[in-house]
Amino acid sequence: MQTVILSRTSRVLAGHLWVFSNELSGSPRGFEAGSIVEIRDRKNTFLGIGYINPNSLISVRILSRERVDIDAGFFKKRILNALEYRRRFVKDPLGADAAFRAVYSEADLLPGLIIDRYAGCVSMQFHTLGMERLSDAVVAAVDEIFSPVTIVFKNDSAIRALEGIPLEKKIVKGSLEKLPLVRIGDSMFEVDPMAGQKTGFFLDQSENRAAFSALINKSGIAKSGYSGLDLFCYTGAWSIAAAKRENVAVTGVDSSEVAVAQAGRNAELNGLAEKCAFVKSDVFEFIKAETAGKSSYDFISLDPPAFVKSKAKLAEGVRAYRQINADAMRLLKRGGLLATSSCSFHVDRNTFIEALRDAARDAGRFCRIIETRSQSKDHPVSLNVPETEYLKCVIMEVG
Amino acid sequence: MQTVILSRTSRVLAGHLWVFSNELSGSPRGFEAGSIVEIRDRKNTFLGIGYINPNSLISVRILSRERVDIDAGFFKKRILNALEYRRRFVKDPLGADAAFRAVYSEADLLPGLIIDRYAGCVSMQFHTLGMERLSDAVVAAVDEIFSPVTIVFKNDSAIRALEGIPLEKKIVKGSLEKLPLVRIGDSMFEVDPMAGQKTGFFLDQSENRAAFSALINKSGIAKSGYSGLDLFCYTGAWSIAAAKRENVAVTGVDSSEVAVAQAGRNAELNGLAEKCAFVKSDVFEFIKAETAGKSSYDFISLDPPAFVKSKAKLAEGVRAYRQINADAMRLLKRGGLLATSSCSFHVDRNTFIEALRDAARDAGRFCRIIETRSQSKDHPVSLNVPETEYLKCVIMEVG
Repeated sequence: MQTVILSRTSRVLAGHLWVFSNELSGSPRGFEAGSIVEIRDRKNTFLGIGYINPNSLISVRILSRERVDIDAGFFKKRILNALEYRRRFVKDPLGADAAFRAVYSEADLLPGLIIDRYAGCVSMQFHTLGMERLSDAVVAAVDEIFSPVTIVFKNDSAIRALEGIPLEKKIVKGSLEKLPLVRIGDSMFEVDPMAGQKTGFFLDQSENRAAFSALINKSGIAKSGYSGLDLFCYTGAWSIAAAKRENVAVTGVDSSEVAVAQAGRNAELNGLAEKCAFVKSDVFEFIKAETAGKSSYDFISLDPPAFVKSKAKLAEGVRAYRQINADAMRLLKRGGLLATSSCSFHVDRNTFIEALRDAARDAGRFCRIIETRSQSKDHPVSLNVPETEYLKCVIMEVG
Repeated sequence: MQTVILSRTSRVLAGHLWVFSNELSGSPRGFEAGSIVEIRDRKNTFLGIGYINPNSLISVRILSRERVDIDAGFFKKRILNALEYRRRFVKDPLGADAAFRAVYSEADLLPGLIIDRYAGCVSMQFHTLGMERLSDAVVAAVDEIFSPVTIVFKNDSAIRALEGIPLEKKIVKGSLEKLPLVRIGDSMFEVDPMAGQKTGFFLDQSENRAAFSALINKSGIAKSGYSGLDLFCYTGAWSIAAAKRENVAVTGVDSSEVAVAQAGRNAELNGLAEKCAFVKSDVFEFIKAETAGKSSYDFISLDPPAFVKSKAKLAEGVRAYRQINADAMRLLKRGGLLATSSCSFHVDRNTFIEALRDAARDAGRFCRIIETRSQSKDHPVSLNVPETEYLKCVIMEVG
């Protein structure tokens, strides 16, 4: 095993798992991309074991601060530790139809690795070359722990380009002839791990949807029936969580035909086909038409894709959040409820709330924030690795 | 009614309720302190009605953007609107033993006014001279809406000094011979609105205590019994919320003899006297002694008074948060739970989390944030008035 030496104080000493190229004494060039290395400080003290990628801005990611073999046994221990966390703080992660994030990368001390479980199917993402090279050991550990019927690699994240690895999706065990059927809260969803976004479902919003749906129900927005809008509805999770309540009708809008079709099937699965309508449309176009018609809704969930994908695009993205939120506020009745989200890591909570403040000014509305939320508990935030927090979900009353 | 003219773009146009002295054309001198004024822009357009205090940095606070009489009828309407918000999003605010914040100042469009209800007793705080001068109308409205047995003015906040009004506490209706007995979650508390902090109880933490207690219970920290610490325990609310769970023993620590005595009575009220011990001690001294003895706990709640009372004291206060949080982390077993709070407005969420990160480094602990929370829903945050958000409560697993 080769050794890298930290040239100066690194965040690694404060518990972070990343070593940037400028923190190394000497160039990372010459190291085999994706290989395991030992990390030492200038006094030659052992700091940990990680993997290196000379082609990435983040040269090394730490896998362990102890001398261990990085093998299936190592992954088994880490994944069981992550499972224990979920068992303690989330809910039973081993239920037959459970859907949850079993491993959330750095927050579970497994940088570059995402493991989501959808009932009998495990969907994985390898974001880094170093982790990708360890995939056999990961699969062996996952197989032993979950005994899944199906294992999928959903390696289509743009992050992989930064690591110099190709995008690919493949089934590595079993088949997807029958899609997994999972329970989220009190609803059932069919998940297609090969199609669509992330590993097939936005699990990070599960608790936020439940909180919003409870508030809609409690609020008594309209005694004669609530009418809601689910913007960027994807496969219908926000709509369905809301439509489970009495007197609710929801329209979900998404530009993806596949997602909208899946949303319709999910509504049927829950006996909610009559309460949910899904529209294939560009969301911005849809809003424009609605604003012109002065439609007004009792509640809106607004859960767009990340508008800010890099720091350079921050100002532009913040303007986009401001604009679409002002539009959403205008579509609400007075006293209506808005659940608005941003999954852009580069837009921090303060910045997002400022954009919402500007939106309220544009729309001429007075808003009270009921709750400010983050990602579900199966996506823990590592205090030592701030990059593990990215989701903001603000629920407010739009007066 | 006199008129003030805004000299330049003010945050008032963006929905804020404050006019600073430098936003006025001309000096606020000459206006009667606490009197009602009309606010107009340079084109003489009516913007609203508020009260003025030439001796305060915030010259004018807006009461209404419409032409209305500021009388008991005005306050009745505003307080009923605030009640409606709580009915929609919190829970039944009119239960006989309910305890909740009925009016939260700017967030309920009543700048400078706090109204807390503790069963048959209403405890009020007037933070500004302008609102104080309206107290008869406020009391008339409160009397009509709540028909309280007792009304207390708890005007001992240091904020009043900035307004040039004296500190005072008085009973303005009924008596406190029998202290109000209130239900918070599944526990009962005796509240003394004349003694102690704020209006008698930290209602802003109610939902955070419930969330922490649920996590303690779920976590199964120690099968043979959990041992917890409640630092700055005041009248025992964190201890009691936790001790309601099985196999839990809690030690609460506070420097106030009165608070600790009340905490003991509250534990008895809930049949938890054997599970709760309350210690009168300086918390910093207590921690020092514990650290020396290497005690270790399964969970700790750390809810100190504001360490940062002015912007000038920020760096010093942040160091204090870092230090005490590092100490608390050291007192926890691996995998223990910490609920750590800051009610300092000047310490924003990012700054607080950075202080916790530094604390984790000092203590050599790896922490996962389970939840980041804010104040209870009966303390809504006005999107237009960012100063209405002040509480941070971070619940984490200290590994």
